[in-house]
Amino acid sequence: MILVLNTGSSSLRCALFRPGAHAPAWRAHVAEIGQEPRLSVDGIISDRERSPTGDHAAVARWLFARLPSAPNAAGHRVVHGGLHYAAPVRLDARVVEALEGLVPLAPAHQPQALACIRAVGESWPDLPQVACFDTAFHRTQDRLAQLYPLPRALIDEGLVRFGFHGLSYAHVARTFPHGRVLAAHLGHGASLCAIRDGRSVATTMGFTTLDGLMMSSRSGAVDPGLVLHLIRERGLSPDAVAELLNERSGLLGVSGISDDVRVLEASGAPEAREALDLFAYRVVREAGSLFAALGGLDTLVFTGGIGEHATPVRAGICRGLAFAGAVLDEAANGQGKASIGDPSSTVAIRIVPADEEREIALSVAGLLGGR
Amino acid sequence: MILVLNTGSSSLRCALFRPGAHAPAWRAHVAEIGQEPRLSVDGIISDRERSPTGDHAAVARWLFARLPSAPNAAGHRVVHGGLHYAAPVRLDARVVEALEGLVPLAPAHQPQALACIRAVGESWPDLPQVACFDTAFHRTQDRLAQLYPLPRALIDEGLVRFGFHGLSYAHVARTFPHGRVLAAHLGHGASLCAIRDGRSVATTMGFTTLDGLMMSSRSGAVDPGLVLHLIRERGLSPDAVAELLNERSGLLGVSGISDDVRVLEASGAPEAREALDLFAYRVVREAGSLFAALGGLDTLVFTGGIGEHATPVRAGICRGLAFAGAVLDEAANGQGKASIGDPSSTVAIRIVPADEEREIALSVAGLLGGR
Repeated sequence: MILVLNTGSSSLRCALFRPGAHAPAWRAHVAEIGQEPRLSVDGIISDRERSPTGDHAAVARWLFARLPSAPNAAGHRVVHGGLHYAAPVRLDARVVEALEGLVPLAPAHQPQALACIRAVGESWPDLPQVACFDTAFHRTQDRLAQLYPLPRALIDEGLVRFGFHGLSYAHVARTFPHGRVLAAHLGHGASLCAIRDGRSVATTMGFTTLDGLMMSSRSGAVDPGLVLHLIRERGLSPDAVAELLNERSGLLGVSGISDDVRVLEASGAPEAREALDLFAYRVVREAGSLFAALGGLDTLVFTGGIGEHATPVRAGICRGLAFAGAVLDEAANGQGKASIGDPSSTVAIRIVPADEEREIALSVAGLLGGR
Repeated sequence: MILVLNTGSSSLRCALFRPGAHAPAWRAHVAEIGQEPRLSVDGIISDRERSPTGDHAAVARWLFARLPSAPNAAGHRVVHGGLHYAAPVRLDARVVEALEGLVPLAPAHQPQALACIRAVGESWPDLPQVACFDTAFHRTQDRLAQLYPLPRALIDEGLVRFGFHGLSYAHVARTFPHGRVLAAHLGHGASLCAIRDGRSVATTMGFTTLDGLMMSSRSGAVDPGLVLHLIRERGLSPDAVAELLNERSGLLGVSGISDDVRVLEASGAPEAREALDLFAYRVVREAGSLFAALGGLDTLVFTGGIGEHATPVRAGICRGLAFAGAVLDEAANGQGKASIGDPSSTVAIRIVPADEEREIALSVAGLLGGR
């Protein structure tokens, strides 16, 4: 049995996979860790009294005590692998130390994953553990796609486009291993990835998870001169600007109402409409940039919470992608079918449920030789 | 006679136009103001002894004393017109005050233009003066194209995509008034503009002139999280980051050799090659984004110093734009002809010499009723 831990900034997904299995034998999901944790097991949300409390490590230990069977190996989602890790890696003290050094690059995610790695080590000291990185999938990109036009010394020090959501994109690439694929991972965090024959060609997130698309509460790409203006002319502290761009922008900032697509879709307010329209517009513009990187398009894939469930968002995006030959089947889109392209579309349009846990389980099995 | 002053951060172009004339009756250009000013008149570079000295105002007064005839009106290029000025405006004390309020948004350009406006006022107190803005051409854009996904209060305060190079793009739009045009103004500063039927639809520069394309010494767009990282994790001051991104990045930063395309093309160094390749790659990626905004492309226009003269740069960009139907006629490109598209190209490809001075003269004549 492979224990998979998918650590988010305030959530923990935990699953047990038999090697080679498509679906987990058991899974649980705890949301809003640090606030009022909510547990769900196989889609059933438990009541408060039965939910765990505490930080990620405490929640992990609480879940470990309830596993239906003991694991033979563990795999972790780790957001940042830096430039060094281009593939999953067996964890040891040296690797953990290297990953701790990357905390400043992913302060909202990396510490939680490291806490779960330590929790596994304390519960099962001899269990083999593997780290699977959100950045690793993008290390196949041409060097030009990974560079910011900075002084060369800073490039050499690693100030480059790492890219993220790599486990989700690896799952998409496994599902569509051939041709030119534009994958849209649209969730609380959102990015696009251009994939050619299963390999990442370019992506919208960059050095951090703030770059690229407009997100639920993140601005995505903004003029670096605007960041400096907020600090130098408006007197905001760098921390305040980081909070503003990460926590109070995006759908939440533009609407002034909510960071949740469902709430905005149900709202009649013009500000909610504008936020949703801008979200789709930004996807279309960045999709054009990735279309150029691919030189054309065969398959468009929606994944992630918004990508899988927000029918009007998919429709708005596809309207803007008519230039690429994408034509949506409105009925199929409304039903959330797996294939939602109109017969007249020159581009296949698909919905693929995100499955980072299976990707981690496959990586662990691959690295540890099928065990 | 219309006196035209095109003020750059360290240069001043001065010309006299008869109303309606295509070419100026007289013109002069002073470069490297503040260092060792170099004067050229109608393309002939004068010797040092005959060149003016001092700041922009001093250089302007020196030129005014040498005009072959007195002007009846003056027009100025002013980089920043903010959100308020969507067209050329007759200058008076109130307008000048408003433009002074925009200095923080264009500190490297706006003060020099205001100095030249004052110099004209001192030389000819009653001369009608007109300000023509680099930002005005972009005010026709849909609101979504002008928004960053920021908190609504900041959007309402004017933290939006202004866009620049508008006088150059107005000249392109005057030359190609119909269809979907992608204009590439590639000079020391560089941007792209999507133009539909003569109106700006989207552009790459944003709140400041730092956004968008890689430039000679500017980085263009970088992850806002990277800007914050340089300040918070590396301890650089905001001023140092501004200097780094504006003065030491782009072609200069990546090559480590020069900010000049000609020098890099002549260099055999791999770093020079990489800088040029990244410059073209960034143009192609942003062109894809504007292609999406236009929904297709009829005409591709190169303008600006690099756009007009750098044959290999145009070739590199066009190779990346094959997805849009652009096919270059290599021979015509090598000769720098006005039309450089191959007969098989579905997109017309043109070189248009930048002519901001004529655009200013036309605006002045239009605003002041042909005088």
